[in-house]
Amino acid sequence: MFSLTVRDHFMIAHSFNGDVFGPAQRQHGATYIVDVTFKRPTLDDDDLVIDIGLASTALGDILAEFNLRNLDEIAEFQGRNTTTEFMARVVFDRLAQAIDEGRLGPAATGLTHMGVTLHESHIAWASYEGTL
Amino acid sequence: MFSLTVRDHFMIAHSFNGDVFGPAQRQHGATYIVDVTFKRPTLDDDDLVIDIGLASTALGDILAEFNLRNLDEIAEFQGRNTTTEFMARVVFDRLAQAIDEGRLGPAATGLTHMGVTLHESHIAWASYEGTL
Amino acid sequence: MFSLTVRDHFMIAHSFNGDVFGPAQRQHGATYIVDVTFKRPTLDDDDLVIDIGLASTALGDILAEFNLRNLDEIAEFQGRNTTTEFMARVVFDRLAQAIDEGRLGPAATGLTHMGVTLHESHIAWASYEGTL
Amino acid sequence: MFSLTVRDHFMIAHSFNGDVFGPAQRQHGATYIVDVTFKRPTLDDDDLVIDIGLASTALGDILAEFNLRNLDEIAEFQGRNTTTEFMARVVFDRLAQAIDEGRLGPAATGLTHMGVTLHESHIAWASYEGTL
Amino acid sequence: MFSLTVRDHFMIAHSFNGDVFGPAQRQHGATYIVDVTFKRPTLDDDDLVIDIGLASTALGDILAEFNLRNLDEIAEFQGRNTTTEFMARVVFDRLAQAIDEGRLGPAATGLTHMGVTLHESHIAWASYEGTL
Amino acid sequence: MFSLTVRDHFMIAHSFNGDVFGPAQRQHGATYIVDVTFKRPTLDDDDLVIDIGLASTALGDILAEFNLRNLDEIAEFQGRNTTTEFMARVVFDRLAQAIDEGRLGPAATGLTHMGVTLHESHIAWASYEGTL
Repeated sequence: MFSLTVRDHFMIAHSFNGDVFGPAQRQHGATYIVDVTFKRPTLDDDDLVIDIGLASTALGDILAEFNLRNLDEIAEFQGRNTTTEFMARVVFDRLAQAIDEGRLGPAATGLTHMGVTLHESHIAWASYEGTL
Repeated sequence: MFSLTVRDHFMIAHSFNGDVFGPAQRQHGATYIVDVTFKRPTLDDDDLVIDIGLASTALGDILAEFNLRNLDEIAEFQGRNTTTEFMARVVFDRLAQAIDEGRLGPAATGLTHMGVTLHESHIAWASYEGTL
Repeated sequence: MFSLTVRDHFMIAHSFNGDVFGPAQRQHGATYIVDVTFKRPTLDDDDLVIDIGLASTALGDILAEFNLRNLDEIAEFQGRNTTTEFMARVVFDRLAQAIDEGRLGPAATGLTHMGVTLHESHIAWASYEGTL
Repeated sequence: MFSLTVRDHFMIAHSFNGDVFGPAQRQHGATYIVDVTFKRPTLDDDDLVIDIGLASTALGDILAEFNLRNLDEIAEFQGRNTTTEFMARVVFDRLAQAIDEGRLGPAATGLTHMGVTLHESHIAWASYEGTL
Repeated sequence: MFSLTVRDHFMIAHSFNGDVFGPAQRQHGATYIVDVTFKRPTLDDDDLVIDIGLASTALGDILAEFNLRNLDEIAEFQGRNTTTEFMARVVFDRLAQAIDEGRLGPAATGLTHMGVTLHESHIAWASYEGTL
Repeated sequence: MFSLTVRDHFMIAHSFNGDVFGPAQRQHGATYIVDVTFKRPTLDDDDLVIDIGLASTALGDILAEFNLRNLDEIAEFQGRNTTTEFMARVVFDRLAQAIDEGRLGPAATGLTHMGVTLHESHIAWASYEGTL
């Protein structure tokens, strides 16, 4: 299995609901360093997993929707906690949709698996991975 | 599949038995930077993989048993080599037990897989991973 | 010149005022990974730059004041932009005060210089350094 | 499952063929930081995944074949693009052959899986992994 | 003293002249991860060391001149070895000129010192630093 | 001012004397990741700060004296605490002597400053720096 990973980041404010979060129920924020891994069993005709330029652009476009925002104000996230693991899934779903829409190029149809990791600090990170 | 990883470390002395270890048969030591990854297919009701506070505390308690110790003096390890890969398994087993005992909270029963990586230097690390 | 550095982190929300900040004028947030470097020309009687336990505790106490908070709500910062470089100075000043108050132990009087670096992402960080 | 990873690097020149590569069709180069992960379900009699000394030496020997070279001049790669993912596979295949030839020691016959990651920058890396 | 650092990278081919370089006299290449540190004794009216957007853009423009190129073909470098330390100075000089030309904004006139570090691998990096 | 840094590591056992060390008075150990920075105001005739091959070899030779050893058994360190900052100075002094003896080549006489950093974990490191 081949894979290619690209890294980007976004910076957000949010707060959490639930006693389990303790002081993190207060308004606070995070820098999320994002690693997206694309996988496929064989390389395409150019010896690539994916066009890294298209992949980076698509990821940047998706993160721009959240970057420098307060996630508490985004309608789609009402009633949920925008934890690191939850946001990893959100980025995964949007990238999967971008692939389906052809925004990562025709060769991206060969991808079979994707993983998204969000690093919230030097001592904690979370991921969502699944098949495409 | 969702995952959450937390990082901690411990510092130990030890020595190895066997010609394969060469000069590492002498008394020496290591800093082990420990990454523990918890996995589950769905998030809990709080949109979490696990309570990161409980997970960090449980990991810290387990590492405290070995931290600033000479592993050669620990009865449980007699007759074994406390290699990086061996110690990854030791940390895994103790964390699995902590989960069974409820020390990572009731939501931890939803965990299905765990991985433990010990970094011994910037150029070498070892892991043990398995199902829960 | 000897130095010792310890690392910790805090996570905050804030917003900026001024056209230069563009979209960062919106409510957003950051994880700040904090490196504090203590310097002195000679070691103390224990061959130390500083008691690393006291240093880590003092740093943790100072960061706890800001951690999981919205910096826009802190009276002391009204009329200022809590940029990464500005916050590096804030942490520096509080640590310098802690040293003056003896909270880092009597040997800390031998410190002559300190530096504080806040990493806001994998591609940007800022520092304040000065004499003690 | 146990694993052990060792890190090394090599520095090469190359160029790519195909419109998808844009300006990377020009002669340029890269530092590849290489992580090789060896996996097996049980440890050997010395509590090891593999002899780390032999593994590091074998990896170094393989990278020496490419290090400080122009990959465009290597006959074996004619008609291919020596992308990061392609080179990950090349290193994998040579290491698999080294294991078969016994160059990583007799205990290496217990290995069941291997992964090779090449980091081309702080924001992009690629891998090839497979069974042995 | 305050400082702000931004990170970027570029990938080049080159070769060296001189027996001291051994096999690095052959055509090879490198990824250079570039950290530029801007320093000034006081913050500007926006509580900034420098406009990070302008700084990142100026750095990107400068690196684009060399990125995905063979440095041996650049007239300016004839008769020199484009070592990591030499290229750190080249980037420094171009950025100093950009500051003089106002491309980093009017507040950049307050900068007093700059440092440029090029990482050529995980085990080697070089810098040039000087006053402005 | 130009600089070049090389990285290596060593792994040791030791114990400390003095109440300030708490549980670190027990036999334990550390991995020290070592960064040595060589500085000079101008490059040599080959556009180098120093011959990186000679520098790496000299550093490796010096670390080999301590690697995989119990520092408590080394006569030279009796009555001292082999703290991270203390060991940074030890490595500095041995490298300075190696430079004086010509082991880093004739061009090394142009070096004016050196710094040695020992990383003991991902959250603590110490340095000694001085003129040559």
